[in-house]
Amino acid sequence: MYDSIIIGGGPAGLTAGIYLARANKKILILEKETIGGQIASSFSIQNYPGFSEINGAEFASNLYDQVTSFGGEIDIANVIKIEDGKVKKVYTEDSVYEAKTVIIATGVRHNKLGLSGEEEMIGNGIHYCATCDGAFYKDSDVAVIGGANTAVTNALFLSDLCKNVYVIYRGEKLKCESVLEECLMKKDNVTVLYDTVVSKLIGSNELESIEIKNNNETRNLDVKALFLAIGMVAESSLAGDLLKVDDGKYFIAEDTFTKIDGIFVAGDCRSKTVRQLTTATSDGTIAAMNVLEYIKKL
Amino acid sequence: MYDSIIIGGGPAGLTAGIYLARANKKILILEKETIGGQIASSFSIQNYPGFSEINGAEFASNLYDQVTSFGGEIDIANVIKIEDGKVKKVYTEDSVYEAKTVIIATGVRHNKLGLSGEEEMIGNGIHYCATCDGAFYKDSDVAVIGGANTAVTNALFLSDLCKNVYVIYRGEKLKCESVLEECLMKKDNVTVLYDTVVSKLIGSNELESIEIKNNNETRNLDVKALFLAIGMVAESSLAGDLLKVDDGKYFIAEDTFTKIDGIFVAGDCRSKTVRQLTTATSDGTIAAMNVLEYIKKL
Repeated sequence: MYDSIIIGGGPAGLTAGIYLARANKKILILEKETIGGQIASSFSIQNYPGFSEINGAEFASNLYDQVTSFGGEIDIANVIKIEDGKVKKVYTEDSVYEAKTVIIATGVRHNKLGLSGEEEMIGNGIHYCATCDGAFYKDSDVAVIGGANTAVTNALFLSDLCKNVYVIYRGEKLKCESVLEECLMKKDNVTVLYDTVVSKLIGSNELESIEIKNNNETRNLDVKALFLAIGMVAESSLAGDLLKVDDGKYFIAEDTFTKIDGIFVAGDCRSKTVRQLTTATSDGTIAAMNVLEYIKKL
Repeated sequence: MYDSIIIGGGPAGLTAGIYLARANKKILILEKETIGGQIASSFSIQNYPGFSEINGAEFASNLYDQVTSFGGEIDIANVIKIEDGKVKKVYTEDSVYEAKTVIIATGVRHNKLGLSGEEEMIGNGIHYCATCDGAFYKDSDVAVIGGANTAVTNALFLSDLCKNVYVIYRGEKLKCESVLEECLMKKDNVTVLYDTVVSKLIGSNELESIEIKNNNETRNLDVKALFLAIGMVAESSLAGDLLKVDDGKYFIAEDTFTKIDGIFVAGDCRSKTVRQLTTATSDGTIAAMNVLEYIKKL
């Protein structure tokens, strides 16, 4: 039996693994796809304290090494169900594992445009976080896709860094808070393109420009990056019945605690306001501390 | 005028600096003593995600470089007062600075034994955090000083890693939660020494053993490390009148927000449950995001 099974091998899950394995606990991290999660595909990280620059794959590999060097186990497997009980059961497609505690750190999935070449350009022109990647496009022209708070916040952030910022929105009126819209309207270097969609990504592996479409008219727009803010969903389906989720399907888990003793939630899949590497590793740490506390009192 | 003045140049303050400077904001970090704060004196960090091992001074220097590379300013100066207003004023012994926002990230000060050689052995036998430094003493004999929850939690943590753990407490009965005391009593490798104090640290620069005193009898105890859990105080005097503090003098600042618009609190000086590097950098990130949001709406 494991002291803890951690579902999700992104920064939150791996950090929980580092803390628990280093505390001599027997742990298993189950990741369904890529060790490091989203961050593994990041071309360059410049805002994580400690590294002036590191690429996501290297960062993920460092965390992997830390977990395993302390004796933590990591497997690639898709978790399909969690069962509560004095012993928790975690079901993958092929196996069932037992543990005293479970940490859910399954992250989020960003909505995509669905255009050809999009997948390949993630990190090279297609981005999801202006705070993380905006600085790579200092003094360049960029576009934000979307019309809600996240899109406008990203555009405002980028307007302080980039030459021109286009907000491309399919609707005829932004649906963000009015105070944000007012701020946006005051920016000389921001243009909002209403009733407009991106119809083509131009470039191979790296974005060079885009084609946009407004009322059946298409034209090219020279932007070096697209920041997609068209929504994301938490990867919470594996436990959505067991635990409380909010409107966005994020797990409600104050300080990583859920309504079920011994099951904790960490990282981007948790309901919270700021989703950055630092907040993910913080969540992983707090979840690990809570696991230690819980096990101690069993 | 600065967009933000950050008081305290530890991990929380420096992280806020990285985020704000990288977002093209004009910032000044004022640190009274050592860039990096407490962590700068850490001999080796092994639980910070990304580095299998790094010493505290190098870590601090990396963060310093990140802040300054993005154009952030850092000065050594002791802040004595903060004044609220539409423009915030920050007074040091020699100057007064103006800013739109202030982030307080002043950290904590640990209570000390007051013994000769103690200062020099910090990080080399004298420690404050079992979760951080316990693993360096795997299979060795160690002692924890104190009798409240923190001491006993540290002792329980160490009992899973170390050969023998001594809890040295000056009182005749532990003052921790009873459930923790019960756990402690079940551990075969833990000995509680009541009515006992540490009377001498033996070793030069590195702890070799200690002398302990019980009812005027002194004897030597062979331990390689002392984990001090005899209290700590938040460095909150510079704003304790302006902001709300809890019993331990920690600033009450949920999600880094204080009762004063435009003044935020980040890091160990904030009232919270887990104080680790990861939670400090997370606080710094969240405070920076809140500053950006606040400035945007000014």
